[in-house]
Amino acid sequence: MRTALPAELDRTLAALLGADGWRTDASERLTYGYDNSRLQALPDAVALPRTREQVIALVRACRARRVPLIARGRGTNTTGAAVPVAGGVVVSFERMDRILDIRPGDRCAVVEPGVLNGDLQAALAPHGLFWPPDPTSAAFSTVGGNLACNAGGPRAVKYGASRDNVLALTAVTGAGELVVCGSATTKGATGYDLQRLLVGSEGTLALIVEATLKLSPLPPARGLLRALYRDVASAARAVARLMAQPVTPSMLEFMDGECVRLARDVGGADLPAQAGALLMIEADGDDTTLPAALDALARAAAGDGLLAIEHAPDDAARERLWAARKALSPALRTLAPGKINEDVVVPVSRIPALVDGVQALAREFALPIVCFGHAGNGNLHVNLLFDPADADQHARAQAAMARVFALAIGLGGTLSGEHGIGLAKREFMPQALDAATLALMRALKATFDPDGILNPGKLLP
Amino acid sequence: MRTALPAELDRTLAALLGADGWRTDASERLTYGYDNSRLQALPDAVALPRTREQVIALVRACRARRVPLIARGRGTNTTGAAVPVAGGVVVSFERMDRILDIRPGDRCAVVEPGVLNGDLQAALAPHGLFWPPDPTSAAFSTVGGNLACNAGGPRAVKYGASRDNVLALTAVTGAGELVVCGSATTKGATGYDLQRLLVGSEGTLALIVEATLKLSPLPPARGLLRALYRDVASAARAVARLMAQPVTPSMLEFMDGECVRLARDVGGADLPAQAGALLMIEADGDDTTLPAALDALARAAAGDGLLAIEHAPDDAARERLWAARKALSPALRTLAPGKINEDVVVPVSRIPALVDGVQALAREFALPIVCFGHAGNGNLHVNLLFDPADADQHARAQAAMARVFALAIGLGGTLSGEHGIGLAKREFMPQALDAATLALMRALKATFDPDGILNPGKLLP
Repeated sequence: MRTALPAELDRTLAALLGADGWRTDASERLTYGYDNSRLQALPDAVALPRTREQVIALVRACRARRVPLIARGRGTNTTGAAVPVAGGVVVSFERMDRILDIRPGDRCAVVEPGVLNGDLQAALAPHGLFWPPDPTSAAFSTVGGNLACNAGGPRAVKYGASRDNVLALTAVTGAGELVVCGSATTKGATGYDLQRLLVGSEGTLALIVEATLKLSPLPPARGLLRALYRDVASAARAVARLMAQPVTPSMLEFMDGECVRLARDVGGADLPAQAGALLMIEADGDDTTLPAALDALARAAAGDGLLAIEHAPDDAARERLWAARKALSPALRTLAPGKINEDVVVPVSRIPALVDGVQALAREFALPIVCFGHAGNGNLHVNLLFDPADADQHARAQAAMARVFALAIGLGGTLSGEHGIGLAKREFMPQALDAATLALMRALKATFDPDGILNPGKLLP
Repeated sequence: MRTALPAELDRTLAALLGADGWRTDASERLTYGYDNSRLQALPDAVALPRTREQVIALVRACRARRVPLIARGRGTNTTGAAVPVAGGVVVSFERMDRILDIRPGDRCAVVEPGVLNGDLQAALAPHGLFWPPDPTSAAFSTVGGNLACNAGGPRAVKYGASRDNVLALTAVTGAGELVVCGSATTKGATGYDLQRLLVGSEGTLALIVEATLKLSPLPPARGLLRALYRDVASAARAVARLMAQPVTPSMLEFMDGECVRLARDVGGADLPAQAGALLMIEADGDDTTLPAALDALARAAAGDGLLAIEHAPDDAARERLWAARKALSPALRTLAPGKINEDVVVPVSRIPALVDGVQALAREFALPIVCFGHAGNGNLHVNLLFDPADADQHARAQAAMARVFALAIGLGGTLSGEHGIGLAKREFMPQALDAATLALMRALKATFDPDGILNPGKLLP
C-alpha cells in the first residue's frame, strides 16, 4: 500500500530526511502505528529526524499541507497518545538520542528527546546524580516521551514527576517556530513558564527537540520497611502520618486487601491472612542519615491497625520483602486475561473512600478490581480484570471504569496521575474539567498549533 | 480630581461592589498607585471585591469598556508590577483574605488570594505544616501576590518557589471566564498545566480568586553553620559540593567579599580580614535526623579555601552567626542613599564568573556593587549603590545594571530568579528571550486576555 501523502510532500520530505530517515513502506509504517495501549492506526509515513533543523522543516512542510504530525518516543505509553488516529506522519525521535551535556556542578543535563531514560541514568550514575522520573518503562522509554506524558513513578513522592524535574525545553511549535523556554537555573521569574506547560501536553502543543533536566544527588543507600495493616483505612491513616512528618519517604507504595490476598493465595507470598493492606516504605540517604530516617518512618508507620512492620537490613531481606509486590502482577494475569489499568489520583485522605468505592463497583459489576500504587501521592493504579473474549464482560469493564473515574473526581481527584489522557480518557475530560477551562485549553492548543496538525484527536475532547 | 472612568461604568461598579468596595476618591486612588519599586501612577478607581462573582462581573464590565484591571496584593513587589501605568482599576484583594480550608491529611490549604503569607503560616503551624515560599516580605505580602510573582526566598533551595508549591488555582481570565486549573493532588496528568503557567504571570493572564497550596511538614528543629572562605571561587565550589550530596540544605545563603568587608568595617560584624566570601548553611529536621544532616553539610562545606566553619548549637549562637548577614543592609544604607537591587540567576557553577564580572563593572562604572543571596539556586541579589540626587551617578547605575543583566544572560542565566519582570525589566526581555518565544508569550497573553485589559504594559516588552 502506497502512502496517501501528496507526492510532492513525499518527495520534499524524502529529500529532507534521506532514505534512512523517511519511511513510507507499509510494513515500516505498521511498526510505528501502535503503543502500549493496544490501540493501533496506520500512519502515512514515518520521519526519523536527526536535527532540530529537520524538525522545523518537517513541521513547516506538513503544516503547508495540513498533514498531522504525531511525536513518538518508544511507544511505551498506555493511553494511545502515540497512535496516529488521523493518519499523517509519525515523528520518531529515536535518532535524536544524544546526551549533549552533563553538568554536575549545576545539577543539570542537556539531552535530545530520544535518549532512553535508562541510558541517561547510566550516564549520570558515575557523577553521583540521577534524573528522578522512574516509570516502570524507564529502561526502554525516552526522556521526550516521559516529558510528553509527565511520567512519574514511585520516586515521585519525594522527587516529583517529570514536570518537576525540567528546567528548560527547546521545542518546535505547530507553526514551525523554534522556541526556547526556561533556563538552566533552578529558579526563574522571567516571563511565562512555557516549559512546564509543554510537559504533559502529549505532543499536542510542540515537538520537544532538546531538554535541560534538573538532576538530583544519587543517594548512596536505601532502606526498606514493609508494614502490614488490618485494613485500608488504617494504612491510609499511616500514609497521612508518614507524609506529615519531615522525612519524606523515597517510595510509599500501597496494596489493597485484594492485592494482598492475590499475592498470598495465588502468588504464594508469605503474608498473614488478617492483612487487609500493605505499605512498602523506602527511605534514601547515606550511612549517616539513613538510620535516623528509617527510625522516623517506622515511628510514623506505627499506629492503630498496624499488624507488623519489618525492616530489610540487607539486599536479601529487601528482595524477600519486595516478593509480595512482585507476586502481584503474575497473580493478576492468572485471574483474567484482560486488564484495564488506570491511574486515578485522589487527595491522600480519600484513599480509603476510593478503595471502598472501587470494591463496591467490583461487586456491582461482578468483576475483580484491585488497587495498588503510589500512596504518598494518592495515585492508585486501579486494575479492572476481565476476559476480553467475553463481550459482556468487556462492556461491564468499560462501564465500571467510567464509574471509577466519576468516583475519583467526586472525591476531589482527577483522571490521571501519571499516565496521561491520550485517546483512552479524552471522552472523560468534560467530567474532570468544566467547559470554560476546556475551552481555554483548546484556545491554548490553537495558539501553539494554529492548524491543529500536532497529534490531532488526543487529550482534548 | 474625579475619576476618568465612564460614568455608567462607575455607577455599575459602585452598585456591584458597594460604597466600601469601590473607591474613586483621589486620595484613596493615590494609596493604591505605587508598589515597593518606588514607581507610581494614579489609577482611575480601586475595587475591593469580596467574592469571585464580583471579580467576574468586574472583569466583564471593564472588558466591555476596555478599561485596564491591575491585580494588587499588598504592593510589596519591587518591579512596578502593581503600578497602574495605563490607568484603569486597581483590584485589591485585601478583602478576599480568608483561609477556606486547612487539610492536614492532604497537606494542602485552600485560600483566597488576599491572605497574608505570614497569617497563613501562623494558621498552619498548629498543624505542624508550613507553606514554603518565604520572601522577605512574608509578614505583609499576600499569597496571591506571591503567586503572581513566583516569589521564592531562602527556603526555595530545598522546598522550591511559589510555582512548586501550588496544586490548583481558580482564576478569572481577561475574558471574564472562571477557570479551575489543577486539583488538590500532588500528581496530575489531566490536560494542560494552567496553574503553573498562571504563577509568575504578574496578573497579565488572569486574576486568581482561590488557590490550593501544597504544604510541607514543619521541621521541628533547625541547625545553622556559618562557613568563611578565602574567596568567592572557593565558596562557589563549596556550594556545588553542598548541592551535589543527598542532604539538601534548607537555606544556603551567600555573601561576596564586598559584603563581608561592609558587614565587618561598617556594620561591626566579627569577621576576619582575610574572609573573601561567606556561606550561611541551614539544615532542618528533627532531633533524630538533624545532627546527621548537619554533619553531612559540614563535610561538604569543607575543602580548599575554607577558613573557618562554626556551628550554632543554640538560639544565642544562631543570632550571633546571623549578625554578620543582618549587619549588611544597614551598612549598605550608610554607603549610599540609592540602591538598585536586582535578582539575576545563573547556573550555580557560574557564580564566581558572575561575581567577578560584577566587580569589573563596579570598577568600570566607579560605583560600589555587592552580591549576596540564594547561592543554592544561583540566585544572587546584585545591589548597585549610588546617590539618586547625582544625575550622573544615577545614569551610570542604570547603565551598569543593564550590563549586569547582559552578564547573567551570557553566563546561561536569566533576568530574574524571584522578583519578576514588571515594569523594571521588561525592556530587557528581548535580551533574555528570542523573538519567536516572546511572540508565543504575547499570543498566550492574547488567548487569556483577548482585549489586553489585564495589567497592560507589564512583563512583555
